[in-house]
Amino acid sequence: MSDIIERLAAIIADRRTADPESSYVASLHAKGLNKVLEKVGEEATETIIAAKDASASGEHRDLISETADLWFHTMVMLDQFKIPPATVLAELERRFGTSGIAEKSSRQTTGQNHSG
Amino acid sequence: MSDIIERLAAIIADRRTADPESSYVASLHAKGLNKVLEKVGEEATETIIAAKDASASGEHRDLISETADLWFHTMVMLDQFKIPPATVLAELERRFGTSGIAEKSSRQTTGQNHSG
Amino acid sequence: MSDIIERLAAIIADRRTADPESSYVASLHAKGLNKVLEKVGEEATETIIAAKDASASGEHRDLISETADLWFHTMVMLDQFKIPPATVLAELERRFGTSGIAEKSSRQTTGQNHSG
Amino acid sequence: MSDIIERLAAIIADRRTADPESSYVASLHAKGLNKVLEKVGEEATETIIAAKDASASGEHRDLISETADLWFHTMVMLDQFKIPPATVLAELERRFGTSGIAEKSSRQTTGQNHSG
Repeated sequence: MSDIIERLAAIIADRRTADPESSYVASLHAKGLNKVLEKVGEEATETIIAAKDASASGEHRDLISETADLWFHTMVMLDQFKIPPATVLAELERRFGTSGIAEKSSRQTTGQNHSG
Repeated sequence: MSDIIERLAAIIADRRTADPESSYVASLHAKGLNKVLEKVGEEATETIIAAKDASASGEHRDLISETADLWFHTMVMLDQFKIPPATVLAELERRFGTSGIAEKSSRQTTGQNHSG
Repeated sequence: MSDIIERLAAIIADRRTADPESSYVASLHAKGLNKVLEKVGEEATETIIAAKDASASGEHRDLISETADLWFHTMVMLDQFKIPPATVLAELERRFGTSGIAEKSSRQTTGQNHSG
Repeated sequence: MSDIIERLAAIIADRRTADPESSYVASLHAKGLNKVLEKVGEEATETIIAAKDASASGEHRDLISETADLWFHTMVMLDQFKIPPATVLAELERRFGTSGIAEKSSRQTTGQNHSG
């Protein structure tokens, strides 16, 4: 799976400077951070609606598609800050630890981290 | 990176049936789909706010942490539907293709897919 | 102010059955509940982003415009359920009470209601 | 209805400087803009989920309650900027006009305003 994320991150970084007319990523970048964040909010909403529909219908296709959209746009957002997705995954790694145990004990009191 | 996602998905699936008193994942599952979706919406909002702050301050720590929270809670959501994260990554893979070719040509007219 | 909300609700209800080609409200209704909810989520995101920008710039114009969009689309949503906005305002009235006192004491333990 | 909004805005403004220990509004203000915006995003998500549930069940109670929460927290947000809700309603008024005429013709090309 890592290959997909790494390759996708590379494609996003590569298209950052492409022609906005022919690249969706480039067009998002050209419109700036607010536009990218609007897409993150939009896709989060669509994911939530798709999950409610999937729960009622048992059909997962839209939910998978919307979740892919959400992850993709968060990766475009990270790219705007030149943050590699690996940094986010390392943060998740850190929380769950090499042993993968003890979620509660590693949770911080700020309530910001949900490690288990 | 794949190892992290695969391991995290395994931990989430494993804790689905843990004691809600001692496991955050189990407590989310016990509260049901709506609670998990509320968290997805909440973390999307916090990610957007953190991105605006990161843009102003140049400090990325909170943005990384909130994005990790968002990805984590979408994985808990997927787990409620028994959808492996690999399925979502395969959908991204499908859109970008093995060759990573022309995003525009593969975009569907529904506007649901953003493949480039 | 009441006149504005009442008149707006009447206009929305009236346009529900208008030609989707010439009425934005009718076009939203024609697209169904999910589309209206997507707009609520979208406008909430844009309101949040506008608030961060307003906080940095001191310029309130976009924030006012986005909040108007958000309230407008929640009214279109209510209209889909034939819920008059007056019902929502009555709920706020009920929480704050005729005396307008004692927010804490009237808050419910579910954490769903924030009456003060 | 205006009385409710005006009175609510007055109560919110009044409690801005109350004891955060005894006033929910004061506690929100004490936590700052980000916390208020997180609540706006949270309540928007809960409104969307409640609308999906109301659509399935025909039961409107939660949807009314969550919409009230959403409007309330947007009013607390406006109060942080000292923007009276009347300003937002005036913006809606402006879009729809005293005559309630042709929405399409008054829509701006930016796509920011949905006046009909």
